[in-house]
Amino acid sequence: MIRVGIVGASGYTSSELIRLIIQHPDDIRITVITSESYTGEHVSRVMPNLRGLLDLEFESLDIASLKERVDFVFLAVPHKVAMSFAPRILEQGLRVIDFSADYRLVDAEIYEAWYKTEHTSPEWLSEAVYGLPELHRDEIRNARLVANPGCYPTGAILASAPLIAHRLVHLAGIVVDAKSGISGAGSKPSLATHFPNREGNVTAYNVAQHRHTPEIEQELSRVAGTPIQLNFTPHLMPMTRGILSTVYFALVENITTEALLEIYSEYYADEPFVRVLEQGQYPQTHAVYGSNYCDVGLEVDMRTRRVVVMSAIDNLVKGASGAALQNLNIIAGLQETAGLDAPGIMP
Amino acid sequence: MIRVGIVGASGYTSSELIRLIIQHPDDIRITVITSESYTGEHVSRVMPNLRGLLDLEFESLDIASLKERVDFVFLAVPHKVAMSFAPRILEQGLRVIDFSADYRLVDAEIYEAWYKTEHTSPEWLSEAVYGLPELHRDEIRNARLVANPGCYPTGAILASAPLIAHRLVHLAGIVVDAKSGISGAGSKPSLATHFPNREGNVTAYNVAQHRHTPEIEQELSRVAGTPIQLNFTPHLMPMTRGILSTVYFALVENITTEALLEIYSEYYADEPFVRVLEQGQYPQTHAVYGSNYCDVGLEVDMRTRRVVVMSAIDNLVKGASGAALQNLNIIAGLQETAGLDAPGIMP
Amino acid sequence: MIRVGIVGASGYTSSELIRLIIQHPDDIRITVITSESYTGEHVSRVMPNLRGLLDLEFESLDIASLKERVDFVFLAVPHKVAMSFAPRILEQGLRVIDFSADYRLVDAEIYEAWYKTEHTSPEWLSEAVYGLPELHRDEIRNARLVANPGCYPTGAILASAPLIAHRLVHLAGIVVDAKSGISGAGSKPSLATHFPNREGNVTAYNVAQHRHTPEIEQELSRVAGTPIQLNFTPHLMPMTRGILSTVYFALVENITTEALLEIYSEYYADEPFVRVLEQGQYPQTHAVYGSNYCDVGLEVDMRTRRVVVMSAIDNLVKGASGAALQNLNIIAGLQETAGLDAPGIMP
Amino acid sequence: MIRVGIVGASGYTSSELIRLIIQHPDDIRITVITSESYTGEHVSRVMPNLRGLLDLEFESLDIASLKERVDFVFLAVPHKVAMSFAPRILEQGLRVIDFSADYRLVDAEIYEAWYKTEHTSPEWLSEAVYGLPELHRDEIRNARLVANPGCYPTGAILASAPLIAHRLVHLAGIVVDAKSGISGAGSKPSLATHFPNREGNVTAYNVAQHRHTPEIEQELSRVAGTPIQLNFTPHLMPMTRGILSTVYFALVENITTEALLEIYSEYYADEPFVRVLEQGQYPQTHAVYGSNYCDVGLEVDMRTRRVVVMSAIDNLVKGASGAALQNLNIIAGLQETAGLDAPGIMP
Repeated sequence: MIRVGIVGASGYTSSELIRLIIQHPDDIRITVITSESYTGEHVSRVMPNLRGLLDLEFESLDIASLKERVDFVFLAVPHKVAMSFAPRILEQGLRVIDFSADYRLVDAEIYEAWYKTEHTSPEWLSEAVYGLPELHRDEIRNARLVANPGCYPTGAILASAPLIAHRLVHLAGIVVDAKSGISGAGSKPSLATHFPNREGNVTAYNVAQHRHTPEIEQELSRVAGTPIQLNFTPHLMPMTRGILSTVYFALVENITTEALLEIYSEYYADEPFVRVLEQGQYPQTHAVYGSNYCDVGLEVDMRTRRVVVMSAIDNLVKGASGAALQNLNIIAGLQETAGLDAPGIMP
Repeated sequence: MIRVGIVGASGYTSSELIRLIIQHPDDIRITVITSESYTGEHVSRVMPNLRGLLDLEFESLDIASLKERVDFVFLAVPHKVAMSFAPRILEQGLRVIDFSADYRLVDAEIYEAWYKTEHTSPEWLSEAVYGLPELHRDEIRNARLVANPGCYPTGAILASAPLIAHRLVHLAGIVVDAKSGISGAGSKPSLATHFPNREGNVTAYNVAQHRHTPEIEQELSRVAGTPIQLNFTPHLMPMTRGILSTVYFALVENITTEALLEIYSEYYADEPFVRVLEQGQYPQTHAVYGSNYCDVGLEVDMRTRRVVVMSAIDNLVKGASGAALQNLNIIAGLQETAGLDAPGIMP
Repeated sequence: MIRVGIVGASGYTSSELIRLIIQHPDDIRITVITSESYTGEHVSRVMPNLRGLLDLEFESLDIASLKERVDFVFLAVPHKVAMSFAPRILEQGLRVIDFSADYRLVDAEIYEAWYKTEHTSPEWLSEAVYGLPELHRDEIRNARLVANPGCYPTGAILASAPLIAHRLVHLAGIVVDAKSGISGAGSKPSLATHFPNREGNVTAYNVAQHRHTPEIEQELSRVAGTPIQLNFTPHLMPMTRGILSTVYFALVENITTEALLEIYSEYYADEPFVRVLEQGQYPQTHAVYGSNYCDVGLEVDMRTRRVVVMSAIDNLVKGASGAALQNLNIIAGLQETAGLDAPGIMP
Repeated sequence: MIRVGIVGASGYTSSELIRLIIQHPDDIRITVITSESYTGEHVSRVMPNLRGLLDLEFESLDIASLKERVDFVFLAVPHKVAMSFAPRILEQGLRVIDFSADYRLVDAEIYEAWYKTEHTSPEWLSEAVYGLPELHRDEIRNARLVANPGCYPTGAILASAPLIAHRLVHLAGIVVDAKSGISGAGSKPSLATHFPNREGNVTAYNVAQHRHTPEIEQELSRVAGTPIQLNFTPHLMPMTRGILSTVYFALVENITTEALLEIYSEYYADEPFVRVLEQGQYPQTHAVYGSNYCDVGLEVDMRTRRVVVMSAIDNLVKGASGAALQNLNIIAGLQETAGLDAPGIMP
């Protein structure tokens, strides 16, 4: 039996993680869920979809007692809070999978520049592994601290890695135009998530300033072996879930859509959750709704010698909680796809 | 191993059934999927969410060969077509779970009056079992032909049965006001399902004429032991899935919301898929999205001595394919909840 | 020139009122808009659709100075606040059109029972006119204080009045099942208006307890000449605007859909904003989107001798700001339809 | 009085044009509406929002009789059909505003390459004026044949023109990523417009192949004075109306967001329908819903020396029928904004 605790468990990534874990074929037991705002409330009051399926109450976080009660901790609190908890949990010998951005960037200075706050546990950065199995599976296996990737970076990196690894594109001038569902903004109401402000409405936000930018750049730079800077523009779509990333590259030399798809298929041949679409098929967010799959498609524009690569993920699954569970599976030595191979719900 | 065939397999109820079966923990194998319009196409071309998860092509229906290849047949063709296929499949000794309305109404004359067509195999009506386990579990167990319930009837009946069984309400004047997602209209495009005609739009349709009316009446009449006629008004909501049924009854005598909830809880105590909500909680379609649960809540209006009962289901799962799989589990002697106990996807 | 002030001007009813007034063909000038939260902000910062169309800043309310600057005051503040402002504004000789519920109910005791608060200016209740022109046009003409109707009551009353006036239905057992867009909940974010909580989600709320119930009952009782109590159940739809009201009545005697439609057409023959649909046509919220029209349709259910009447309005226009402007037109002696005869925006 | 006819009048651009014309302050009368599929039907049967507002029936097209009955013809038929009608209507001395693509491209060969069909009236191409007033107002004034711009080109061109006119950006490598509502696909149902296929779903289509590409290139090449080729990727959003265009440029040299906004404001200073937003504000489709405005905003990414320009339009108004009416106003010598200055409907 694997006992897991979820810290900061009242938000969307947590409810999604619980949904996945209670369907997991192995004996993974959620023994602790903490929430300061819902302490004492039954989980089904906050997550009515879980009614009858998990009999647990939110409790207040008590780090000291965690060691006795759990084997793994999913840390689902905001950045800054995460780095205030993580070291103390890790020091108890527990492994941590952190949903926040606090340990994703290798370079504390870059973190501090984008997040406008001091990094309070830089000593853990070298220990942390960026939890995208498609790039870092081997390091994840032995990681004590996994920095679970951001939703936008997951879509952008999986769309881009094969082109960059094969040096088929110019590294300057990459454009990532991402379209996200509203759940990415979290479970807390705001003007930006108010239904009448979002229905029938499409808009960009945080243009040239979104904090996922350095994360995408870091990982693609690693793939390239040389620093990459790119343009990343997130947009809000009138839908709850899903991210479609449209990524634009200038090709180094002419190559056909067919040939590129072949390269992608090989690159991801052993990846259980990346599905490369056939020529003429493009990813759609609904096809991965509620699932851990990332669909990737592409089209070469011969006239302009550019290639347009598209990826679709569910931001709450492959973009968050599915990836976290995938990481747990890897660390715990379970089958990597266990509890994660359900198809998307469509229509 | 249980081998199943799905006839008329390109629509929404079939894609949903496939989605559920491929996650089923027992060894149920889909060996035949037929579609006249998509013959020769790979299933993932029509259902991109299933990409990589089921390697099968649609074929043309050949009833004669079914016996060798399947143990059960799910019949997912329109009414009239269903009754032209079902007898020939049944005569081969195969069991049939029929999604259409052709065998739901015990009385062929009522069928003919509402469906404006002759019933061509009335001899099978007495054999057919109305496939709502909550009312007919025992008969389903040995059924050769299961008439899988309509989506609206499922929601309306489950909301109403306890009140009627306990003779707490007047049987005249019942009003069923149902709000449905668009997927209930099927996978074939029409003016009524055209996105710009439905977004931001709510409307009633088939008022006083919807064919699910006699089905609701038949089953509630059985519960009552006396004939019931009621008002049923379906509405289209700007969403894909889900039915919320709001049912209005005049109480025979005063009773509190609390007492009624207690009665509901007892009535459904052994039902794995009916969840009775606490006082002050009302069902919401999103909490059962993609799941086989039916959430039921109610509120007494003391001023008018009426009770308002609400139920929420996913029309494609508990309202169609989940119920069909539940019926298969029952007939095949599997655990009734097998493959069906996943929580709804929320948000 | 008519000078108007809008008090509490940052919400949806105000933005809608401004939208309508700036298109009004007569010389109506908005000279004051007040908002305590947005004092000093330009109107287009809060209402980006008005950019370039109204050059005005929100100011803090100063009742004493209103008299010099405006002829009419639209009071768009919450109930309780409204009755704290209205008397002081009225005492300056200004006419007031109040969007709140504070002066809608003739009987202060009923108000206090439903709103759980003392009525602080009951002396103005006899002066106030319920601002539904279809029922009270003559009194509105000379009103000093107009209580602008609630959105649900507008739809329910217009659907019901002809049947009740003609004594065609039983007055007991009326059921009003209303389906509303989210904008009815106002411009302030909450869990109930959070996009991920509403997309794909339909639910009832305030069952048997919604405060618009006594308002509907009051006005239909006036039409009937005898007290009516009814069931009113509001539901939230995944859309921004619009209310579809489905109202169920037991007919006193048999009558055809056709005959009833004829009666409705005559009843509303002189009403510019009520459109009675032909047989077989049902109202849809999108057909009145952004407009002041109320579409009404109906269908008799001969089997159960009941009639289902449906009405569609835009909750922010005919259900709020359009009605308010219609009232202003009446009081100011302008053409009643001036600035209000634009068709709905569809699709 | 100006008499106008609308040929092919049953689609969305026509219903939108009718909606605008019946609110026009000048005496413009719609005297003929033709539709082969709805001949003999009253306009309100197809466009229920217009009920009571236009008493006209669709008739079959009779070109010979047009001259007696109309002064202007709006041609709202598909490409290919348009060029089969236009010459015959023009030869009668009537002016034509054509919604199709048939006369938008100056070069018949480019038309034939992208539309895969022979151009059957190339002799009219030199006469035709591309009907984007912001670029071609003077030629429109005397045009006999106006080629009304495509929806995507309108958004893309208005976002790009100032940068290109001022030679601030590199002309190679421009990326136009456009997000459109479903109404752009027209009023005819298809799999692509089927509600369950679009709700919660975002996808690209016609990547590197959309026919609006050469139209954008033609007009921006004219502005540049040198040929431009660019990448254009359209996406479908789960909403009915609106296009958000996100356009990416490499800056020739460093310049601030503030300075660029100043340049845009000057460039569009005399344009009544282009609204340049302040720094930090980004266009949103809902703010122009139902209106003829185009909102433009931008942000410089100093790190990558690129600028991201965004524009929002209503595809059916500024992207189609509003532009057409604007063109009529110009040709007819009316005030250019007449009937077009209504704000967007928001929320």
